[in-house]
Amino acid sequence: MVRVLGEEVTVYWVGAAIFGFTSLMFAAWEKRRQSEDLVFGSNIFVSFITTISYVVMALALGTTVAENGQPIYWTRWLFYIASCSILTLDIAFIAQKPASQKVEVALFTGLTMFCGFLASIIVTVDRWWFFALSSVAYIGMLYTLFKRRGDESVNITSVMWFVMLTWSLFPVVWVLAPTGFGVFTTFAEAILYLALDFMTKIAFGLYIAPRQNIGKQQS
Amino acid sequence: MVRVLGEEVTVYWVGAAIFGFTSLMFAAWEKRRQSEDLVFGSNIFVSFITTISYVVMALALGTTVAENGQPIYWTRWLFYIASCSILTLDIAFIAQKPASQKVEVALFTGLTMFCGFLASIIVTVDRWWFFALSSVAYIGMLYTLFKRRGDESVNITSVMWFVMLTWSLFPVVWVLAPTGFGVFTTFAEAILYLALDFMTKIAFGLYIAPRQNIGKQQS
Amino acid sequence: MVRVLGEEVTVYWVGAAIFGFTSLMFAAWEKRRQSEDLVFGSNIFVSFITTISYVVMALALGTTVAENGQPIYWTRWLFYIASCSILTLDIAFIAQKPASQKVEVALFTGLTMFCGFLASIIVTVDRWWFFALSSVAYIGMLYTLFKRRGDESVNITSVMWFVMLTWSLFPVVWVLAPTGFGVFTTFAEAILYLALDFMTKIAFGLYIAPRQNIGKQQS
Repeated sequence: MVRVLGEEVTVYWVGAAIFGFTSLMFAAWEKRRQSEDLVFGSNIFVSFITTISYVVMALALGTTVAENGQPIYWTRWLFYIASCSILTLDIAFIAQKPASQKVEVALFTGLTMFCGFLASIIVTVDRWWFFALSSVAYIGMLYTLFKRRGDESVNITSVMWFVMLTWSLFPVVWVLAPTGFGVFTTFAEAILYLALDFMTKIAFGLYIAPRQNIGKQQS
Repeated sequence: MVRVLGEEVTVYWVGAAIFGFTSLMFAAWEKRRQSEDLVFGSNIFVSFITTISYVVMALALGTTVAENGQPIYWTRWLFYIASCSILTLDIAFIAQKPASQKVEVALFTGLTMFCGFLASIIVTVDRWWFFALSSVAYIGMLYTLFKRRGDESVNITSVMWFVMLTWSLFPVVWVLAPTGFGVFTTFAEAILYLALDFMTKIAFGLYIAPRQNIGKQQS
Repeated sequence: MVRVLGEEVTVYWVGAAIFGFTSLMFAAWEKRRQSEDLVFGSNIFVSFITTISYVVMALALGTTVAENGQPIYWTRWLFYIASCSILTLDIAFIAQKPASQKVEVALFTGLTMFCGFLASIIVTVDRWWFFALSSVAYIGMLYTLFKRRGDESVNITSVMWFVMLTWSLFPVVWVLAPTGFGVFTTFAEAILYLALDFMTKIAFGLYIAPRQNIGKQQS
């Protein structure tokens, strides 16, 4: 059992640098926002929590070893509980969901990521129980977000389709990475997750930021 | 020190199956609810979180060994932090408590279960410190829920008496189980907690579901 | 490597006794509060959570050993996540910040303490990464709390200066204690943190309690 630690660590430092930069960028933009807004400066927190997550992975704090000898960085999923709940809460705000459904969407997201954490930290076959439970919570989140679409504008629906498509690639990577069937290495996994984190957290934040202002002016 | 693992695990799988089923049942009922409700679909989350908790116990992830050699499944209490806070928040909603007291009731519940977790994971005599702190938080929760009863209708008060009586059996089981004095085994403990979980989470949910609708129509 | 356990434990028991007493004191005062208040009985929870934290430290559950052989009680910072987020949420309420900034202040505080936990549990040089990230979150919290000062009365600004000065001594103690450069011992650290906990949680609570009533009567 040889742990190849090193390659993926470089990816994590790159991720920490990118998200550290975007934390500051979103914070600088925050000043220009109108202040009396129910949607808080969520992009700052999503980027900042992700920065901490990448530093934790770059320092290889908290890893297990998959059956094929590749390291598993399970800490990622604990940070997703916070960052992704904020993200979906944000989406529910933009989609002008009633308060009860905002809470439901955030809770389903938190449970998705918590079961993802259990599925990642466990290296035996038992992990698939939690992959299944995580998938159920994820479907619950998507269902809550997508039902009663008639009320929302075309823009909001396009945002939600972007979310569904990009977010759904996370479990695909999980299944193919050493956490699942080990089709590719932890290094490849690190690059793919970074690309997905970039799309779902930074690109999404940049796309949504002006729409948050529009939503505010309407209400 | 012989760990008798096996008997109680069967009970946990049964619990996982029951709560997995009720998660889906409450989710199916959720569709028929009116949508603009402040009380979110809490029964779904209580059942789903309890399902995850039972799978974690069924796989015997996270146990310690009591002084009498019986295994202690302390993970239960971490999941209670979430599921029981949602339950008491729900009760506070139904009792039409002001917002500040809703938060207080949920915080007291969370602290009760967190101290219950510490009392369960610690096998030395020190655990009784946390049993005491947990009891104080529990009394605080009951006090916040029961004070100013004059404002509530008879139905709501009967719900709260049901809650107080069934919830108060949890610490009784804890004291008599291997976590406390070890009067009975972990197997008996597992059956008793499952019966209490059924009463406080499923029977309560079935009883409260139509009243949530009534409360909604009134307001 | 000799762990000098004992001296600091006495300080922690004293702390547990003090905060246990103030929990009851704030609970007794709570009865006299007017009930329909958005600021919940936060002083009770801050004191009670701190009581649990001191009992956990007094029993030496969860410690690491610094490079100079002194014990590090890292559990403190996990409890600060909850207690200090409640405190800053309270401050944001008193300062009549908009809802979005209340959430931001509480999230920044939680992240400050979470990174403080990582900085404390890690004994290698890597811990300074998390000290830096904690400091960034702390500056974010102070910035969110202090910006747009023009709207607040003189009293509220004086409260916030008190908060900034006393809270900013925590990282100073951290840097000089065995967690940082080890200029003084864990025993001295325990006394200094207890003094700071007293100022920021009890003295602050006593100062703020009548003002919470005033704020309520005005609105």
